[in-house]
Amino acid sequence: MIENNQQYLIQLGQQAKQASYSLASLTGAEKQALLSQIASSLEANRATIIEANMRDVAMAKDNGLNEAMIDRLLLNDERLSGVIADIDNVINLADPVGTELESQLLDNGLRLSRRRVPLGVIGVIYEARPNVTVDIAVLALKTGNAVILRGGKETLQSNLALSAAIRDALTQQGLPADAVQLIQSADRALVSGLLKLDRYVDMIVPRGGQHLQRLCAEQATIPVILGGIGICHLYADKDADIAKSIDVIANAKVQRPTVCNALDTVLVHESIAEALLPQLYTHLCALGVTFYGCQGAQVIANKLGVAISKATEETYGNEWLALTLGIKVVSDIDTAIEHIRTYSSGHSEGILTDNIHASAHFLNQVDSAAVYVNASTRFTDGGQFGLGAEVAVSTQKLHARGPMGLEALTTYKWIGVGDYTARS
Amino acid sequence: MIENNQQYLIQLGQQAKQASYSLASLTGAEKQALLSQIASSLEANRATIIEANMRDVAMAKDNGLNEAMIDRLLLNDERLSGVIADIDNVINLADPVGTELESQLLDNGLRLSRRRVPLGVIGVIYEARPNVTVDIAVLALKTGNAVILRGGKETLQSNLALSAAIRDALTQQGLPADAVQLIQSADRALVSGLLKLDRYVDMIVPRGGQHLQRLCAEQATIPVILGGIGICHLYADKDADIAKSIDVIANAKVQRPTVCNALDTVLVHESIAEALLPQLYTHLCALGVTFYGCQGAQVIANKLGVAISKATEETYGNEWLALTLGIKVVSDIDTAIEHIRTYSSGHSEGILTDNIHASAHFLNQVDSAAVYVNASTRFTDGGQFGLGAEVAVSTQKLHARGPMGLEALTTYKWIGVGDYTARS
Repeated sequence: MIENNQQYLIQLGQQAKQASYSLASLTGAEKQALLSQIASSLEANRATIIEANMRDVAMAKDNGLNEAMIDRLLLNDERLSGVIADIDNVINLADPVGTELESQLLDNGLRLSRRRVPLGVIGVIYEARPNVTVDIAVLALKTGNAVILRGGKETLQSNLALSAAIRDALTQQGLPADAVQLIQSADRALVSGLLKLDRYVDMIVPRGGQHLQRLCAEQATIPVILGGIGICHLYADKDADIAKSIDVIANAKVQRPTVCNALDTVLVHESIAEALLPQLYTHLCALGVTFYGCQGAQVIANKLGVAISKATEETYGNEWLALTLGIKVVSDIDTAIEHIRTYSSGHSEGILTDNIHASAHFLNQVDSAAVYVNASTRFTDGGQFGLGAEVAVSTQKLHARGPMGLEALTTYKWIGVGDYTARS
Repeated sequence: MIENNQQYLIQLGQQAKQASYSLASLTGAEKQALLSQIASSLEANRATIIEANMRDVAMAKDNGLNEAMIDRLLLNDERLSGVIADIDNVINLADPVGTELESQLLDNGLRLSRRRVPLGVIGVIYEARPNVTVDIAVLALKTGNAVILRGGKETLQSNLALSAAIRDALTQQGLPADAVQLIQSADRALVSGLLKLDRYVDMIVPRGGQHLQRLCAEQATIPVILGGIGICHLYADKDADIAKSIDVIANAKVQRPTVCNALDTVLVHESIAEALLPQLYTHLCALGVTFYGCQGAQVIANKLGVAISKATEETYGNEWLALTLGIKVVSDIDTAIEHIRTYSSGHSEGILTDNIHASAHFLNQVDSAAVYVNASTRFTDGGQFGLGAEVAVSTQKLHARGPMGLEALTTYKWIGVGDYTARS
């Protein structure tokens, strides 16, 4: 059985690699035509796709999944229309492939340039969101890459129907269907196997929680882009504008609490804690937020009669993904930075201050993918950053950091053209 | 013992990370002053360093190491002067840190830029070449990074003396000595431990053979830059200029056969094999080259009375690092490309041709770090490419590909500055 798994994966890998060679020479217009064909094919297969999704939903209900989970995997008429409409946005994005980054005539006689090219084959592991199947396939093809997809088992029927429609479109454009392949079994051993397929797969993007990220870091022999875990901080400095700071903190916490760039912990300089915290508690309580705090934060909350739990090492290391907020009073900016270095996942942090020295120090010393001055952590997002599309949000430092756009799906090769030139 | 190793590594990691925060805010001039101090310190400790190296050499002789190995680890007066002189070259290079890659005012009110910053902490694993200790430390410090070094056990005494001199210089500049740390034990378990130190180390660069590269790919939980293995090809197309091609092939094979960009296999279009191969054999035989070939190549060699072994799957997958050359006659350009895809390590390949269509097809379809038209594979080198310095030659596609200069030791962070700006 394990041997069969490996044979199956090697076959997927070989087919993907072979398909990637065809994709590498497509022009931008050819790739635009392919994406249009995919949109048409999804439209033509609408009934089949929605019927497949209904089977996934029925199975999920039978298995007792909760409402939130079922909502995540639901793909109704309206949502499918949204997925198809999003393809148009990608069609209109600039294609980075083929650009020559630099071109110079070297003293050794070589004309040297760096040409941007597709990565080749990308493996993506994700959870039970069928829209990701289309999003990722479209972004990969837009940049000339083949993909091997491994979605959540709860959406296997939906993903089969979606990928079949995409593969139809590839065939209709005279391209190899294996440019998009879905792993068609829920066997978990296939994930571990995929992570070691370094002969064929050039990059792994895991879109999932901490457990999946760790699994990939530990098992992959292929470069992995870790990300999507955001333990995010805002530090209200002694020179912060208190009323405006409360608005930014509330926005970062409340505007969409279930996503990775939502705020997890507020650090407050002790000299403004007495002024800021009572207003913050009142404001956020009314919005349904609950609190964990250090002793100083608890004392102030207790005076107001606001419920607050005791923060621990563990709570400071939580990504809440909910209307929960950690609060800590700190003695100075360096203590705040030290806290961030200890607990942050390297995603998004910000300082709230009117002091130019404090802001420069914070920007310099905080080492996260996105560092803000007087802005909500909620801005860390491909759309907000103007990238046009978002493959993932990387929290590692190599290749791509923060929101990843189309360019993160490409690499470059050095092109050297001589006239039968030898090295002296 | 294993627990002690882990404690030791965690301590190194914490100290390196802490040191990296101090380095992150240095200006270019401060880093130049540091490198000058390192050059002075190596000069001041010349006697100690050379004496330590003599102990390494004596030990190597006692252990029966061969002449080539001993020559590699030798650091005499002249070579140390060369190492010190090389620091001046690095001092004069432009410092990429602090550059803002783009700066734009977004519609959401945020002023957004990507600021180039040091990676943080770099782990480097290398073999018995003491000059690497200085080279890598200097390149890392130039870009504001801390390093943890693990050199070959044969040069431990030399490396201790060199790193002590570098750490002195750091202290004299008021910087933390732990910006440069050497693993002071030959225990192999420390390599595996270092590869899993992801809490503190941001990138691993293994400078060594296939075994080390594979170990890193399999065990590391930290992003690794694989590279330095070059199974390199030249394809002589049907439209190649035969006399000029022979010169380029000879250069690629003979000019320095022991390095990764030296040629391993020549692929020859069948329509020119009868014309090219006899001249190639004659020319290369005189230079001491021995051959492995396919049947077609053997037939031509036999006619000339040139000794040639039978090439196998295995020999085509060899990096020779010696005056040995594989030869294969192919029926067309796509067969040549297919051979390269099967056996190449993704380092350097080239086509020899006067045909513009063949060259474009080859450049497009061959997926290696460096792809050449009418040029020797020997050009793949940081110095030749004008990078000023070379950290390693990457054969993977993420972060850096091909010769890695100073920029490959940096990453970027997104900086967003608002006016207490919330996301709508």
